[in-house]
Amino acid sequence: MALTAGMRLPARALLRAWAWLPGAALGRTEPAAGGGVGARRFGNQRVLVEPDPAAGIAVMKLRNPPVNSLSLELLTELVISLEKLENDKTFRGAILTSDCPGVFSAGLDLTEMCGRNPAHYAEYWKAVQELWLRLYTSNLVLISAISGASPAGGCLMALCCDYRVLADNPKCVIGLNETLLGIVAPFWFKDTLVNTIGHRASERALQLGLLFPPAEALQVGLVDKVVPEDKVQSTALSVMAQWMAIPDHARQLTKSMMRKPTADYLVKHRDSDIKNFVSFISRDSIQKSLQMYLEKLKQKKG
Amino acid sequence: MALTAGMRLPARALLRAWAWLPGAALGRTEPAAGGGVGARRFGNQRVLVEPDPAAGIAVMKLRNPPVNSLSLELLTELVISLEKLENDKTFRGAILTSDCPGVFSAGLDLTEMCGRNPAHYAEYWKAVQELWLRLYTSNLVLISAISGASPAGGCLMALCCDYRVLADNPKCVIGLNETLLGIVAPFWFKDTLVNTIGHRASERALQLGLLFPPAEALQVGLVDKVVPEDKVQSTALSVMAQWMAIPDHARQLTKSMMRKPTADYLVKHRDSDIKNFVSFISRDSIQKSLQMYLEKLKQKKG
Amino acid sequence: MALTAGMRLPARALLRAWAWLPGAALGRTEPAAGGGVGARRFGNQRVLVEPDPAAGIAVMKLRNPPVNSLSLELLTELVISLEKLENDKTFRGAILTSDCPGVFSAGLDLTEMCGRNPAHYAEYWKAVQELWLRLYTSNLVLISAISGASPAGGCLMALCCDYRVLADNPKCVIGLNETLLGIVAPFWFKDTLVNTIGHRASERALQLGLLFPPAEALQVGLVDKVVPEDKVQSTALSVMAQWMAIPDHARQLTKSMMRKPTADYLVKHRDSDIKNFVSFISRDSIQKSLQMYLEKLKQKKG
Repeated sequence: MALTAGMRLPARALLRAWAWLPGAALGRTEPAAGGGVGARRFGNQRVLVEPDPAAGIAVMKLRNPPVNSLSLELLTELVISLEKLENDKTFRGAILTSDCPGVFSAGLDLTEMCGRNPAHYAEYWKAVQELWLRLYTSNLVLISAISGASPAGGCLMALCCDYRVLADNPKCVIGLNETLLGIVAPFWFKDTLVNTIGHRASERALQLGLLFPPAEALQVGLVDKVVPEDKVQSTALSVMAQWMAIPDHARQLTKSMMRKPTADYLVKHRDSDIKNFVSFISRDSIQKSLQMYLEKLKQKKG
Repeated sequence: MALTAGMRLPARALLRAWAWLPGAALGRTEPAAGGGVGARRFGNQRVLVEPDPAAGIAVMKLRNPPVNSLSLELLTELVISLEKLENDKTFRGAILTSDCPGVFSAGLDLTEMCGRNPAHYAEYWKAVQELWLRLYTSNLVLISAISGASPAGGCLMALCCDYRVLADNPKCVIGLNETLLGIVAPFWFKDTLVNTIGHRASERALQLGLLFPPAEALQVGLVDKVVPEDKVQSTALSVMAQWMAIPDHARQLTKSMMRKPTADYLVKHRDSDIKNFVSFISRDSIQKSLQMYLEKLKQKKG
Repeated sequence: MALTAGMRLPARALLRAWAWLPGAALGRTEPAAGGGVGARRFGNQRVLVEPDPAAGIAVMKLRNPPVNSLSLELLTELVISLEKLENDKTFRGAILTSDCPGVFSAGLDLTEMCGRNPAHYAEYWKAVQELWLRLYTSNLVLISAISGASPAGGCLMALCCDYRVLADNPKCVIGLNETLLGIVAPFWFKDTLVNTIGHRASERALQLGLLFPPAEALQVGLVDKVVPEDKVQSTALSVMAQWMAIPDHARQLTKSMMRKPTADYLVKHRDSDIKNFVSFISRDSIQKSLQMYLEKLKQKKG
């Protein structure tokens, strides 16, 4: 099962699906404004890493304006940043957050899925899988500090963390809203959601493509804590301190015991999942839908 | 695992199990009062279908008085009505409700399981399986509007829907109360319940044969909304409108992703499940228990 | 997966892990003060069984002071007591409780895992497995009446029951806190927890080694009822009466349908689980950690 198009896909529904976005769902292929790689900060252009070696943690800020679309570049840089932190014994935890106001991440980048060739689609999908595998099974304690909208792939990244702090702002909606775009969340998005909020809540949320406002996200278990917007970072840090108090090795093995079966299932079906995605996304009907949607977004921006 | 008799089965416990029923748990083999098959209504004798082609939905009313016992005839007609709606592109959703006051459905019809031959038991059980498979994996949006008691098979039908609206009336109890009758819910009843309310709540509810009153049913997640009795239909319709807003194909694939593994498991074990049921229900001890129970019900009615 | 040591295991963390214990986590190898085996009471030295044949139930009191550590002797006697009750048709249910003030059970006995030989470790682990298998799949209705702390293996025993009543006392914390000791709960501890409180809550509770105070234990679903300390026994008895009203055979088959897959998984992997445990616990680093921890406890006591 992969992303699959709706047959009766109205353009209006597509637009409504991302109507909450402050900017647009268009990724930018040009580099983002410079994240300094200095003595105390490292990272790359789209992921700014602020290390706190004394505390053993780092803050990873997504910086792919306007809406942190998960472009191939962002995916790659995020995986590399994670890898660096995992391999550096200094770091035991990381906070995942956004440098773009109003949005955590808009999720997958539609421009990576439209008007390209099958090889590109396959490369892109493999990168999406890779990010999920890395985040979901990370040895680090991962906490997401969410001060903006988190639809689709944005929600997925949050779900991969060990703890989610959400700003108490009605614009900070979160959920896997793929059906609103006429597409279907891949099975591993679904598995991650079921592991977090259970089968029944997932069934309803996925079918309706629900984007939960903060209070509802908390109630259904999609996030663990809702706090005023200016307390999101400090709350994430104090929660991190609680997790840091646990011996690493025992915690990591426990996490692995909980998550490895879910991750292994994708690893086992990785190639067929890529094949499914490429075959789906290459369909004329899907390409036409995406094209139309991207045109509308451009007009809206212009 | 199939329905299996309790060894220390007191007749009093059996009677108590269905004591809440306004009428009795006896099915009627004679045809129910006529459901008109007119220009705007179709269906058959025991399932009245009221279509609203403009809205793309239909209301299916169970009409097998006194308590909508799931007789072989009702099962068959219900499956045929569902099939008709599924095959007619006009319809994208259906509301499942009852035409019998005070009861949604009393569940399986004991007269189909008592004093018949093995071939009949097998035919009956296959029809019960068929209804579950059809309802649970329906391409339609199914919403149950429940204004009466829903024990056992009645609860099962409700659980198969995508959304459940229950009347706020203490008589509107709902649950899989099989153990109260000394029998065991089949594994696919159990799977449907676990998918809805989780493992622990199912364990307790199934062992104790709990029939939940509205507030508790809502709290445990057995239903999605409890409203005053005269708002059940209108609430079901407005919830349906929300589901209708989602592109069909994406929603259907998502539903399938969530439910197909559970359905496939029965499909794979269908024959052995029938065999188990027939072997169980044919036991002398079970037949004697059922006979005794049916006698008591007749006396109560007479 | 078995108990596995933390690499950065601070002795302070270890001590904190059991700091709530009124006595210490040390098991006693000498026999406990005599549990009378009279006309109306039977059992053995460490498990006092008070039968109520008229009601069809028995109360099983753990008596292995100071903290009901699960020594090999206690494990063995508990399994024998359970077996006796299961084989005596007089009994349909049992209440599991503690005779040691302030503690339900401190869980596994560290002295059984420290300074012994591999054969002893294997024997001990097999006994722990055996207790879990017996409790989790017992034909009896098991209700735990918990008036003291229930960490680790103490929590596990409670989770195996059909219903848990907890005293409303902040000292009555309950949870699988293995990570605090730098160790990892075995997969079947994890499975039991997931079956009770779901995947997400388990993931957090297990990683953080959370010990839940009563109100939180109730909210997360770790226990079913919290009552004043002097009402724990009477509440357990009245809940038992509700469970006694259900025909045994149907209830037992239902319980088996819910729990057998989980139990079967350990049965299938029993030998490798023992091997993993022995190999882990025999490591020098683990033995040193445990030794150090036990020394500290002795000093604390002295």
